[in-house]
Amino acid sequence: MRVALIGAGNLATNLGKALIRAEHEVVQVWSRTEESAGALAMVLKCSWTTNLEEVVKNADVFIIAVKDSVLALVASALKEGREGQLMVHTAGSLPMGVLPTERRGVLYPMQTFSKNKEVDFRVIPCFVESSKEKDLALLKTLSSTISNTVYELDGENRKYLHLAAVFCCNFANHCFTLSADLLKKHGDLPFSVMLPLIDETAAKLYAMSPREAQTGPAVRWDENVMAKQLQLLADESNMQKIYELMSKSIHGMI
Amino acid sequence: MRVALIGAGNLATNLGKALIRAEHEVVQVWSRTEESAGALAMVLKCSWTTNLEEVVKNADVFIIAVKDSVLALVASALKEGREGQLMVHTAGSLPMGVLPTERRGVLYPMQTFSKNKEVDFRVIPCFVESSKEKDLALLKTLSSTISNTVYELDGENRKYLHLAAVFCCNFANHCFTLSADLLKKHGDLPFSVMLPLIDETAAKLYAMSPREAQTGPAVRWDENVMAKQLQLLADESNMQKIYELMSKSIHGMI
Repeated sequence: MRVALIGAGNLATNLGKALIRAEHEVVQVWSRTEESAGALAMVLKCSWTTNLEEVVKNADVFIIAVKDSVLALVASALKEGREGQLMVHTAGSLPMGVLPTERRGVLYPMQTFSKNKEVDFRVIPCFVESSKEKDLALLKTLSSTISNTVYELDGENRKYLHLAAVFCCNFANHCFTLSADLLKKHGDLPFSVMLPLIDETAAKLYAMSPREAQTGPAVRWDENVMAKQLQLLADESNMQKIYELMSKSIHGMI
Repeated sequence: MRVALIGAGNLATNLGKALIRAEHEVVQVWSRTEESAGALAMVLKCSWTTNLEEVVKNADVFIIAVKDSVLALVASALKEGREGQLMVHTAGSLPMGVLPTERRGVLYPMQTFSKNKEVDFRVIPCFVESSKEKDLALLKTLSSTISNTVYELDGENRKYLHLAAVFCCNFANHCFTLSADLLKKHGDLPFSVMLPLIDETAAKLYAMSPREAQTGPAVRWDENVMAKQLQLLADESNMQKIYELMSKSIHGMI
């Protein structure tokens, strides 16, 4: 398919590369800055522009992968002269309705993207939605060429999916940060000592549900250990609050 | 070395297998029940008993891997007739002093052990401590034959290490449980859709610190997304509290 890629950030970059690998044609890249547009266009071997008016007038799909805060603005500017085109965004938490065109949709690849760390797009689950049956079929076909896992999901459930991802990725990672702080402060251990434990915590989920995988003092409600650990956090009121709340939640007490 | 293994739970089982692989001799297994003692002894090809008095009178080291709550009791019963022997426990949160013998120590393999899921002991960091230089050297030597990563760590810092592990493993896993609940309730998605995201969240830590790896609405302090997500949790006061506390903590506001 012929794809116009609007955006050149982490997601757009990973998506663009996946599209090329699946032998689609990225016809053009747009980005706000010449640097990022040019850099991604060089990787994808296509033309680029920083002017939305100069974006091609037709493509099988225009994929808008920009920051949530500017999505509506970019899409609205793009609509002019491309009213009959299919536009999709890639944001987990925004409804399809932020797009102004009649043919519209969402292609949400659920993953945490970082600069300089390429991801294997085939293992990333993609969630698609569209206002029209035909466009939904197109998005499913397109997605299944770049990912092994494609689900159709409406905007309401996608909001919860995105929220679930915040818990799995952002909040779990913050637990790692707090852990790193403790290690640094007490014994000055490198955070790398935790990596086998984190890997195994993740690996267990292929064999059992997270509820079944739960271990530790809170699930046993070992009040002795918990009281001692809260005491260790006497100077860390932030971590102490989190310790209490998480322990109660693990034990189903709130 | 000749090792007597006191206990036959998940940790003792994994440890016993690792010792055998490293060509040590497990001379005997003790467990409270015939079933578990017999089962592990069969795997390790050694004798077993359920009577602490019948445990061998000497070994290079007696490794006591039992529940925290019965550790002092088991060790005290074991001491009689074995006063000059080296006894070590495997508990992260307990001091070496719970052991009554003069020659004592700790060998704490930091990992989450589950029934029916074997782990590669070589990647598990082991933390050792002893009251005597010679026994410390023995524990370091023994540990380094079964693990690639051995640290000497005193009891005070080990308490914090164990607490850091609670954050990394238990609390992160609870974030996965809450996420699974949201997916089940909204869209009935299988939790497996989250596995690539969790794997990548873990994999990033090999390339950057967890603080650098942090993404999501809270680190950007995207009040619009956060307000909407809190609203989605209106019927889930537990998750709402956790969402608020974790978001503030991520942003360094508490």
